[in-house]
Amino acid sequence: MRIARTARGWARLDGELSHRLDAPPWLGGRETGETLLAAALEAPVAPSKIICIGRNYRAHAEELGHAVPTEPLLFLKPPSSLLAPGGVIELPPESARVDFEGEVAVVIGRRGRRIREADAAAYVFGITCANDVTARDLQQRDVQFTRAKGFDTFCPIGPWIETEPPPLDALELVTRVDGEVRQRARTDRMLFSIAHLVAYASGVMTLEPGDVILTGTPEGVGPLTGGQQVEVEIAGVGVLANRVAASVVA
Amino acid sequence: MRIARTARGWARLDGELSHRLDAPPWLGGRETGETLLAAALEAPVAPSKIICIGRNYRAHAEELGHAVPTEPLLFLKPPSSLLAPGGVIELPPESARVDFEGEVAVVIGRRGRRIREADAAAYVFGITCANDVTARDLQQRDVQFTRAKGFDTFCPIGPWIETEPPPLDALELVTRVDGEVRQRARTDRMLFSIAHLVAYASGVMTLEPGDVILTGTPEGVGPLTGGQQVEVEIAGVGVLANRVAASVVA
Repeated sequence: MRIARTARGWARLDGELSHRLDAPPWLGGRETGETLLAAALEAPVAPSKIICIGRNYRAHAEELGHAVPTEPLLFLKPPSSLLAPGGVIELPPESARVDFEGEVAVVIGRRGRRIREADAAAYVFGITCANDVTARDLQQRDVQFTRAKGFDTFCPIGPWIETEPPPLDALELVTRVDGEVRQRARTDRMLFSIAHLVAYASGVMTLEPGDVILTGTPEGVGPLTGGQQVEVEIAGVGVLANRVAASVVA
Repeated sequence: MRIARTARGWARLDGELSHRLDAPPWLGGRETGETLLAAALEAPVAPSKIICIGRNYRAHAEELGHAVPTEPLLFLKPPSSLLAPGGVIELPPESARVDFEGEVAVVIGRRGRRIREADAAAYVFGITCANDVTARDLQQRDVQFTRAKGFDTFCPIGPWIETEPPPLDALELVTRVDGEVRQRARTDRMLFSIAHLVAYASGVMTLEPGDVILTGTPEGVGPLTGGQQVEVEIAGVGVLANRVAASVVA
């Protein structure tokens, strides 16, 4: 099942048809019987928090010169950084290098605290694509990731949530810039599996329905320049496409 | 004016009386004419994000062995870490040292992006007290602050929002543990003023009504042990009191 958010509300997608929901499904939303005509998609989430994982692929940790972590590295992106599929990534004047980071995003469907790894799958509502856009120069300068990864438009998510994705340890992620493949990975190469990440994050903070976990980016990250098109695709889920603004926006 | 949140909803406090509001005031809430009888207070905020500032007092940066920053250091606490006035701070088993950090909290009243410092006051709805509870050992181990400062119960806020506080650069902050003064500062000792912080944070992320900015802790931080009572007081605003759980909770 594909769950999307449009300017007119939440919907289940079925081919060309959109079946309206009266709320997001993780809050008990039901189909109203109404069919929505094509409407622009928004980010298919409304999270109380966006939990992110740093350095979850060995080769990416190494390409940035970091040690391979022995436990998951958590950080947060603010909800204000969300960007719709098709939305424009803005280049802030404070940064001279803004990178793409294609990632698998996990949408949480149930409230949970100290979830056991063996139970984690029951808390996953579905999978979507994300781009953990990062001002690399500010990340290095600040040490804390918050500013570098927190600018408005730095969290494209979508295009929809797939509730019946391929197995969580066999998701195939590809990132393309202007059609050229720049990142390619399978989730069985993660240092910490999706189930482990759900368990670990919930050991710190209560997970709420609608929360999102960005599971880390593989090697191949690189800078974006004005006007480029960046796509994050997960096979069996969908393609998240965003254009980069033509120039720096103050 | 004092704005509080109770188990029965938002309210304006007036001596012993609570006047019910139909929504938080920054979302246009109005008095219903109904009077609420005494009800337990909750954290008087419902933020889309909790923005925090690290090392905003020179002597605190120095007591932790850090350089004095040249621009504000941003990080985020998740909304799941909020704790009500009177609520119990839990000690997670992952940490052997949990510190109090008394702080002035700014509640945002209007949406804003790239706010000028001269205009910042118009975006401040009011002031309340906060405790940026921190697992100091995990903060040092992780480098990123998210886990160390993100546990459930690690963000006591309250007891209410004062909308007519003393001048923002002359707020007097005191933290007590079991009645003993441990931190004392005036906001004119901040490295970056409240107006500067509002402007700076809004240069990264759109501020939403109800968002909160924790403005940094002064020197004097220290560990909490089971059963202690910690109070954060801002003169002319109120006293936020929380007890620490008697023992580590798994």
